[in-house]
Order: sequence, then structure tokens, then C-alpha cells
Amino acid sequence: MSDMQWTQAQRATKMNPSVIREILKVTEKPGIISFAGGLPSPRTFPVAAFREACDKVLREDGHAALQYAASEGYGPLREMVADMLPWDVDPAQVLITTGSQQGLDLIAKILIDAGSRVLVETPTYLGALQAFTPMEPEVLGVASDAEGVDLADLASKAAGARFFYVLPNFQNPTGRTMSEARRAALSAEAARLGLPIVEDNPYGDLWFDVPPPLPLTARNPEGCVYMGSFSKILAPGLRLGFLVAPKSLYPKLLQAKQAADLHTPGFNQRMVVETMKDRFLDRHVPTIRALYKSQRDAMLAALKREMPDDVSWNTPDGGMFLWARLPQGMSAVALLPKAVEKNVAFVPGAAFYADNADERSLRLSFVTASIEQINTGVAALAAAIRESRPVQTGTANTAQLIGAK
Amino acid sequence: MSDMQWTQAQRATKMNPSVIREILKVTEKPGIISFAGGLPSPRTFPVAAFREACDKVLREDGHAALQYAASEGYGPLREMVADMLPWDVDPAQVLITTGSQQGLDLIAKILIDAGSRVLVETPTYLGALQAFTPMEPEVLGVASDAEGVDLADLASKAAGARFFYVLPNFQNPTGRTMSEARRAALSAEAARLGLPIVEDNPYGDLWFDVPPPLPLTARNPEGCVYMGSFSKILAPGLRLGFLVAPKSLYPKLLQAKQAADLHTPGFNQRMVVETMKDRFLDRHVPTIRALYKSQRDAMLAALKREMPDDVSWNTPDGGMFLWARLPQGMSAVALLPKAVEKNVAFVPGAAFYADNADERSLRLSFVTASIEQINTGVAALAAAIRESRPVQTGTANTAQLIGAK
Repeated sequence: MSDMQWTQAQRATKMNPSVIREILKVTEKPGIISFAGGLPSPRTFPVAAFREACDKVLREDGHAALQYAASEGYGPLREMVADMLPWDVDPAQVLITTGSQQGLDLIAKILIDAGSRVLVETPTYLGALQAFTPMEPEVLGVASDAEGVDLADLASKAAGARFFYVLPNFQNPTGRTMSEARRAALSAEAARLGLPIVEDNPYGDLWFDVPPPLPLTARNPEGCVYMGSFSKILAPGLRLGFLVAPKSLYPKLLQAKQAADLHTPGFNQRMVVETMKDRFLDRHVPTIRALYKSQRDAMLAALKREMPDDVSWNTPDGGMFLWARLPQGMSAVALLPKAVEKNVAFVPGAAFYADNADERSLRLSFVTASIEQINTGVAALAAAIRESRPVQTGTANTAQLIGAK
Repeated sequence: MSDMQWTQAQRATKMNPSVIREILKVTEKPGIISFAGGLPSPRTFPVAAFREACDKVLREDGHAALQYAASEGYGPLREMVADMLPWDVDPAQVLITTGSQQGLDLIAKILIDAGSRVLVETPTYLGALQAFTPMEPEVLGVASDAEGVDLADLASKAAGARFFYVLPNFQNPTGRTMSEARRAALSAEAARLGLPIVEDNPYGDLWFDVPPPLPLTARNPEGCVYMGSFSKILAPGLRLGFLVAPKSLYPKLLQAKQAADLHTPGFNQRMVVETMKDRFLDRHVPTIRALYKSQRDAMLAALKREMPDDVSWNTPDGGMFLWARLPQGMSAVALLPKAVEKNVAFVPGAAFYADNADERSLRLSFVTASIEQINTGVAALAAAIRESRPVQTGTANTAQLIGAK
């Protein structure tokens, strides 16, 4: 009785294992120093505050916290989110999501038809590509430079696009931040083009010296959906994110949310509200900023000390990632196994492109490894680069690795 | 700058607010006795055990519990799930989901193309219809009687169907249970037809006198996806469910899960593992069964005492719901506002049909209200029925209420 005819949906054939997931498997090796993962430092998780909050919620409000709840999210949390944001947000526009990844899934469901054009940065967040793919869009990368997206290229691709997905602050994967001038220009250009924006901001609070410029959504709330997360300022294992949507879109997002998982765990929402009382984040987030800044500084110093002259990298002003580029003719995909041999891992940048991948790029996380590990790991990576010359292009491997798109 | 052109996806136009949600809004009235909701009794939530478990998890394993985690779910929880099930399940086939509602969303994504035929029982779980709708299937109801699905009708509709969705134990909404004979016959017929089965079993542990017959999946694991939930045996506010899939489907379900929310909160998974240690459920679940049985008995007695002779109802052997039928020519939708006037609420059965709704049917939950409230509420409902004769058919309202399909 086992000869069942499971017919999979078209979209299932377009879905692929996460490239990063596959890469992380390659790098699972005892003692390896990993710059590959996107994991916040567990040192930043406020475990003691959570213990108190859990106990209080269960003692004082246990039955409500454990019951089915509203799909919109827990009222006091929606209010806190509205208060945290630097523009006028009505709590009725806030939808609590099961991590901000779920926000991408809901947006894809209500805005993407098979064949719809969707624009993304070059490069862009891989998880967004994965969330969009099941709805079968045509995803186009828009050229981008160190200040952000190229507006001429955006305009040339905007016709019929359902939205432009953009991560303006300390972007994953590049760590770059869109400048104030570029934001102002993008906001005006998107309005002119009638192009909606989906703004993803999981890292915005992790600035090192000065806060990033105002979000795009603050400049035109009716033209943007904004997504945020508690994963980087509290802890990712609670799976708590949110989105802020124009009132014209909110009801459909809410229906999609309800169909997706009824609601985000009410217990987790209450626990975070309890934790955040008395302006906890005002004391807690600066400790994360200081830690991550010291780790970025350590990685920049190590890169300067260890790397050959023709390796380049940027200087992120916040977040978790740094973007580096190998010498001409080298391939980060081909480099990876050699680096792993030397006990250091990274993610080849090719994984993050919707199209026209830059094979020389790589993403380095500076927040998971300790400073000592950063020093050792960067030296090992530099040695792997030196030994990998002369160049092998590794085209076949790249094609395999970027299979997600 | 507010004139943005948000173009919604085709599927969004097919999504509608939950009928039940809209009904529950109508019934939000101080002091109302509600037989409408699908809420487990909060008296069954093991709050003290959760408090201990939370504290232990955060004390001993806090950093791991709060970090990003595997999309498959927490290993020890997957093992516990495999051990709980009455057939040979490899933990590698278990996928932990954010409530079993998410299982429906993932299944819809990987198995339904626009226009794909999907078969459901008559009536069926509304949340499943909502989860399937965004993938734009053609949903057909298969005739069903008190023992379960009509196999001749199933065979006549099976051609090209992607799967048959079925809830064999103490079904939502009817409370009915598929007999052993019907299960054996359905299992054989599905195999003959090559028709995959999606088996949903959130209520199976809530039996009153004897356990229900073996699941369909146990009879043909390669031909079924099985879904379960911790919502009714522990608490729904944790949003923890699971599915068990054939190895041929698991990788795609996992990719869909990863794109949907990366993973189910690791903290919640560990908390539930900690709670379930030392065979906690063996002691806890019998207390839920006893409570719900006493409430069912109270409702049956009240119905017998209060209802006019031409109102009928079934006697569920477990679960949370009872299914009643109004006298000929009456409409449950038309009755609802009159019942609410008398401070009692229910869900009109029409909400639960994929097609050909029975307007006379209604769903009564016996687990949320106390026995005293059951007595008062059933009397009030009987009075509303008596006063609502002669009959008004209320066709327009019904059409509006069953708008979800």
C-alpha cells in the first residue's frame, strides 16, 4: 500500500535547500572558526531578565498567556512597537509575526502572483529570496553601490514591479548602509514611479557611532511595508518580529497571518513585553552595540594586518556583517573548502545575488566568534587566499551554490 | 507622496476574513455564554509545570534555547513525538511546526497549484480551508455520514486530486469519529485510487471512554502526511504542533518551513520537552479527558432537557465539539443574533462547508463554558429556537457568512 502518487506543486520544484544551510553543513567541523553564520552573540541574550519575566507572566497571567490569542498580536506589544518607531505609527497598523522571516512570507503571499516582477538589491538577503520563491515571482536585482541602490537602474526595471525589497541599515549580507541622500532620492523616485517599498530593518538598532538615517517608511508610510525584529536586540530563539503596514494592506496581511499560524505565541509576546518594561532596551542595546563594535574593530584590524594588498573590504557602521572581495580572477566558492581545511568558514557572496553573482565576494560575520578567534581565523583565511593563487574560477561549483535562484 | 500603487496578488482577492472570527466579534458581549469558540479550557493548562520548566531551561540551557535553531525542530522533541505515535516513526520524519495550522500552510505550499483539486470532508475544519485558499485550489467536499467519509463519493471525485484532507478523531466541527471499519476501507480505497491523505489529529488524545481506532497514517505511512498538536494536551499559546511526512516529501516541507519562519521558537520546544519528562502527559491528559467528558455529559443532559423534539444532535466520544441540527426550514445563521440577544453564542455550521452548506447545522463547544453556564446557555438557546419559529431562511446572510469559500 505504499505506491502513493504524491504530485508536488510547481512552486515546490522551484524551492531549493538554503545555500547557506548547505554551506554551514560543510563547515560543521569541531574547532572550526566560523564567520559564516548569521547568529547573534549569545552573550547578548538577557537570560536573567527573561527568567524573571517568564515567572511573572506565568504567575500573574498564565492562563491568558497560554490560550489562543488574536492574530494581530498582543495589544501591549503592538503599542510598544509603535512607540519604538521614529514616525507616527498607529498600533492598529502593527502585526506581530513569528520572526520577521514570517513577514516576508506574508508579504509574498498577498503581493506576488506567479510571474510578478519583484526588485531586490544587489546583493540581497537570501531568506527573502527563499520566502518569495514559493509564490513564483520573477526576481530582478537592482544595481547597488556603497551608498545603496542605483536609482537609474531601479527606474529602468520598475515597470510592473510589485515592490522593491530593501534593507537600508547594515545590510545582510554586505553590512552597508544607505546614505541619507540616497534615501531621500529613493523615496522620491519610488513615489514618482508608484513603486511600493518593502523595508526590512532587523539590524537598525545595532549602530556603532551614530544612528542610521530615518527609515524609508517614515518618509512615505502609505508606500511602504516596514519589517522589524526582536531577534538581534533580545534573542532570535523567541521568534518575534513585526511589520507595519498601510491600512489598505493590513487586512489581507492579517488574513494571511491567520491562515499561516493563527497567531504568534502569546506567551513569548507577553514575556518580551514584561522584559522591555521600564525602558530595558535603553540599557541593554548599548551593551550589544559596544560588543559588536569591538568585534568589528578586531576584524578590521586583523584584515589590515593579514590580508594581501589586493583583497578589499568595507567598514560597516553597525550590524553583524562585513563584505570582502577577493583578488581578480579568484572565486569565493572555490576558496571555501581550502579555508575549511584551515579551520575557518565564511559564506561565498554568490549566495546572495538574485542574478549576476559576484564570485569574488564573501560575507564575514564578526559577531559570533571571539576576538581571539577573529585574529586566528582571519590569519587562516589570508593564508588560504595566498595558497589558492593562481586562480581557479570554479564556475560549476558556483552554479551549484547559487541554485537557490 | 502617498499615491502608491499596491497591486495585490490574485490569491489575496480569494482570501477572506475568518467567518468564525467575524462571528466571534458579534458575540463579544459582556456576560455572554459562548459555545462558539474553539478554546481549550484554561483550567487544563499546566501552569505550575511550565513555570518550573521555563526556569530550568533558562538556567541550564538558556543560550541555546534563545539562539537560532534547526528548521526541523529540537531533536529531543522530535524523538518524543516519534515515541508518542502508535506506529513506527523515525524522528527524522518529524517536523516541528508553529502550531499545526502551520502544517496546513506548508502542505498547501508544496502540494497545491492554482486549480489543483483538493478533497475535504463534509463539513471540514475551517482553518484548513483558510490555509489552502491562498494556493488557489479547487476544493470539493466529499459526502460524509456519522461513521466518516462516503467512499463512493470519494472515488467519484478522486481523479487528479492532490490529496484528501481528513480529521478522523472527534472532528472539528462535528465531533464525530471515523469508525474502524471505515478507516480500513478508506485506507484501502485511497491506496487503490493512488490518493494521498493528509490526516489531521489535534483531538485524538481527548477520548472519553476508549481510545479511537488507529490513525490512517499508521496503516499506510508512505501515503499520508500526519499532523498533530500540543495545543489541546498542553496549551495553544505556545504554538507547537508537528507533522510526520514520508521521506519523499520531507525535504520540500522542510524548505517551505525554513522560508516560512526559519524555525519554531526553540525556547518553547525546550520548555515542552522539559515539561513532558517523566511521563507527565500520562498523568496530565487523563485529567483533561475527565473534565471534558463531564462537560459533554452536562451539555447532552441539558440538550435533552431543554430542546424541542425536532432539534437533533450527536454524542461525541471525545474532543471539544458537538454538532446539532435545527428543525426543518430553520437557519442557524438567522438564529445566531436571536441567541446572542439571549446571551448565548454558537457557530453556524454553514461556516465549515467547502460547498453545499447545511444551513440547519450548528457547532457547540462544551469545553469553554462551565457546567452552570452550559445549563443556562442551552436553556437560552432552546428558548431562542422556540421563538424563532416560524422559519425565516436567511439565505442572504448565509451567503455572506460562508463567504470564506
